[in-house]
Amino acid sequence: MRLLPALALLLTCTTLAAGSVPRSRPPIAGPILNLDSTQFFFEHPAAGISGEAVDQYVDLVARTGVRTFISCVNAQKANYASRVWEHDWSRYDPKGPDDQPVLKYLSSAGVKMTRQRLDAAMALANQGVNLHARLLARCRADGIGAWVSVRMNDIHDCLLPDSSLLSEFYKQHRAAGQLRSPYRGGEWWADRPLDWEQADVQEHYFQLVKEQLETLDLDGLELDWMRFVYHFRPGHELEGGRVITAWMRRVRAECDRAARRLGHPVLLGVRVPTRPETARRCGLDAVAWAREGLVDLVVATPFWATTDFDIPTVEWQRLLAGTGVHFSAGIEIRYQPVPNGPARFLSPALLAGAALPPLHDGADSVYLFNYDPLPLLRELAPDGHSPLWTEASLNTVYRALQSEATLAPLDRRHAVTFHDIRAPGDPADQALPATDTRRDFQWPPGCALRVATGPRPVHRATSLEVEFGADTPAPEKLRLFVNGTECPAAPGATGRVRTYPVPEAVLQDEAQVVEVVSAPEVAFSIVRLEVVVAAAP
Amino acid sequence: MRLLPALALLLTCTTLAAGSVPRSRPPIAGPILNLDSTQFFFEHPAAGISGEAVDQYVDLVARTGVRTFISCVNAQKANYASRVWEHDWSRYDPKGPDDQPVLKYLSSAGVKMTRQRLDAAMALANQGVNLHARLLARCRADGIGAWVSVRMNDIHDCLLPDSSLLSEFYKQHRAAGQLRSPYRGGEWWADRPLDWEQADVQEHYFQLVKEQLETLDLDGLELDWMRFVYHFRPGHELEGGRVITAWMRRVRAECDRAARRLGHPVLLGVRVPTRPETARRCGLDAVAWAREGLVDLVVATPFWATTDFDIPTVEWQRLLAGTGVHFSAGIEIRYQPVPNGPARFLSPALLAGAALPPLHDGADSVYLFNYDPLPLLRELAPDGHSPLWTEASLNTVYRALQSEATLAPLDRRHAVTFHDIRAPGDPADQALPATDTRRDFQWPPGCALRVATGPRPVHRATSLEVEFGADTPAPEKLRLFVNGTECPAAPGATGRVRTYPVPEAVLQDEAQVVEVVSAPEVAFSIVRLEVVVAAAP
Repeated sequence: MRLLPALALLLTCTTLAAGSVPRSRPPIAGPILNLDSTQFFFEHPAAGISGEAVDQYVDLVARTGVRTFISCVNAQKANYASRVWEHDWSRYDPKGPDDQPVLKYLSSAGVKMTRQRLDAAMALANQGVNLHARLLARCRADGIGAWVSVRMNDIHDCLLPDSSLLSEFYKQHRAAGQLRSPYRGGEWWADRPLDWEQADVQEHYFQLVKEQLETLDLDGLELDWMRFVYHFRPGHELEGGRVITAWMRRVRAECDRAARRLGHPVLLGVRVPTRPETARRCGLDAVAWAREGLVDLVVATPFWATTDFDIPTVEWQRLLAGTGVHFSAGIEIRYQPVPNGPARFLSPALLAGAALPPLHDGADSVYLFNYDPLPLLRELAPDGHSPLWTEASLNTVYRALQSEATLAPLDRRHAVTFHDIRAPGDPADQALPATDTRRDFQWPPGCALRVATGPRPVHRATSLEVEFGADTPAPEKLRLFVNGTECPAAPGATGRVRTYPVPEAVLQDEAQVVEVVSAPEVAFSIVRLEVVVAAAP
Repeated sequence: MRLLPALALLLTCTTLAAGSVPRSRPPIAGPILNLDSTQFFFEHPAAGISGEAVDQYVDLVARTGVRTFISCVNAQKANYASRVWEHDWSRYDPKGPDDQPVLKYLSSAGVKMTRQRLDAAMALANQGVNLHARLLARCRADGIGAWVSVRMNDIHDCLLPDSSLLSEFYKQHRAAGQLRSPYRGGEWWADRPLDWEQADVQEHYFQLVKEQLETLDLDGLELDWMRFVYHFRPGHELEGGRVITAWMRRVRAECDRAARRLGHPVLLGVRVPTRPETARRCGLDAVAWAREGLVDLVVATPFWATTDFDIPTVEWQRLLAGTGVHFSAGIEIRYQPVPNGPARFLSPALLAGAALPPLHDGADSVYLFNYDPLPLLRELAPDGHSPLWTEASLNTVYRALQSEATLAPLDRRHAVTFHDIRAPGDPADQALPATDTRRDFQWPPGCALRVATGPRPVHRATSLEVEFGADTPAPEKLRLFVNGTECPAAPGATGRVRTYPVPEAVLQDEAQVVEVVSAPEVAFSIVRLEVVVAAAP
């Protein structure tokens, strides 16, 4: 998903100035950062890998202002030398050829990346270092929350005959036709997760979870149900959800046992889809789990295709009221306004724009997935030349994510995307591309789009940036209204991207409604729309 | 919206056998029936209208098994001789010509209907009978709940220059350009509601509400925010919602005053959109009202285009937990699977199919809108010959709506429709027509539809009935799966409507997921889909 480093890992070469005296355990605080199970090894080749490199990485993360770190321990295999699961380098011969089974179906670039990753993981293990034990200890030294995450049904590479990412357990189930929905031909990734109604699947994952709770000193354990979301045969989600709930009671008991062993609480977290009813209908009933006291942290998050600029935070917090559960809004790295359309990584302003509305609407924190600083600092902006992120912008924005008050002064872009996960059988509901809906009694002429924007901008230059589709011959013939007030385009613009300054008096708290009004004969489409708020003066 | 009676009003000629001794006030119990403000007068011409006819009508309703009756007092005018509002026959000269202002813009059929309605309303008023006082007294005698409803922003006929349905208050605002969103050209009905952020609008409605509470003996008052849903300039819904909440505090105080006058509770109800977050984003934050103790009854209801077969009842009840509020699922009379597609009235089996899932999922009752028995009994089935409803089926189904236990044994049809109201700027999300979504990484090949079905059918013949669009050349080339199990079509079928028997073992509680799997070259669309459950043996 990421390019290999083209430059040296500048940031890991510095050391943390802060002292290493252990401090008391922090309560859950954001931003929360999830580290993918492969990323550390992509970033740290075998030649230089060591326990100290692990420490330096945590120091880097802590310096950004991240306050809770979550280290993912697995995809289909453990990324460390597990006693209960296959590990990532099983069946990999570092001296063997590129056509050995776990490599032969990859592209040549993929072979190179995979070899580096597996060599690195082996090297660290051979040094006797457990990645997660070391990461968590350093988190504690640096005063940030120390969690691990278990992915509950990872299917990276599931369309390949073999790969280092495919476990023997998975391949056996696949060969036996025991996956989620093989009858559709199996060409679609979501047909290929394991079926969590099967007892051996539940037991398989329970063993991995238990190992974390018995061997690590951790503040919390996350069950990542969003990798890859669909855990049951279609239509079996509600019944399956009861299976998961019963299973989670066992995990909760293991957390309590670990807490006794460690002498401090061991919290339990879950990642689920962004809408509560979607989560329930996927068998991931986080509200029920919270009300039963099974979980301490609920992360409502998109899957992958695009971050979700419209997480219904008010509704989540109402549903979780009285449970004491920490609610976090999950933010992904991709920004894709139109399904299957162009996608890019979030810029600093887009990240601020995604995070501020949930913090404003009552989220306890925001949670970053695929936001490892190292690869992010190598990404280029859409112009192809300047960096998308710099150390300065990264440290500024990550730290500002700690609260609404710190984030609100930054410049920000609030976008329109879509909920990239829906429950099986639920209809699609993407807002873009938006076109003229002058069709009938029920929809208005033109189109309307709602943009979640957080606190009302005060003394901030604010504008709409609209990208029209290629089927929009004359954007200047369209009239744009924000909250019922017409906002003319900035003069002189040509091309498909136009800017419409928005007077401050027009702006509302929480969200803005943008309407495009066209004469019947004026065709148009909108493929991207952002509310752009300049930094506080 | 309904045809005039072609037959005599058979049912009102019978009398109620039950005694007329007043009983204690019933708590809220369903089914709840709302009587439109014009319907009684359409059904009862001036020649025969009387207080006794009113009594007989209530007796008829009570006999059906309805347990709470709600009489609507207004559209833009009061339908009785109000002291604080214009009444329906204001500016109407019964001896005047058909081109008088309140008639001249109507069709000739409309003129005839309107004259009958206004003549009837005048005749009853001239007899000194207040329709609602009489209806409510008889409800009490018959032992059913006695409520009135106030429509908060009715805009029937709003596109006409004049009409008996348009108040002077409304026309003045319209002439002054003070409606919700006149800038879109005003051709769309939803541009024309009054703007509830205006103080005189709030006061205008407060006077009508107050009159009910000061003059009637009522068990409850309903504020019907679903006529016509959009009460604010686009984008002003959240701010406007705070205005409405403050206004409702005043109404709540008036209810409490009325309760002291009457010596029994006077409850307050609201009608809002079917999804909680949609309601909040429309400025109709029923959950906040419930949590503040402002309301006793929340009805989640479609607007008009189609009844909603997928009201998220579990979510509503979770949000209302602990408030003591009665939650009712609103059911409309129209069934329209595809937006702007063919529509018809619900049959007895469709009504049972719409009502059972919410009752199963925890709704306290169901609520019928546009279900006056009199016109319904005149409707013809799609064949154009047989009646859609009979007295027998109506009495059976209405009474069965009292509970899940009584309703579940009937034959029923669970359909797929759409949420006919969404908040301004929120995207459309209709499920039908469903076509092949084999487009990308995110959606599965073929299509999937979720059907809410209530309790799992046991010992009941169950099948899918699917109507394919005209662009489906060969339905027999498609494979249908219910909850992951293939269900072949019943043999021998041709044409666009096909039946697929579903084995009992396949069925799930609450909902079924139907998947259509096609080869890439096989085009198809689904325009109607129903899960048909035969009556209990």
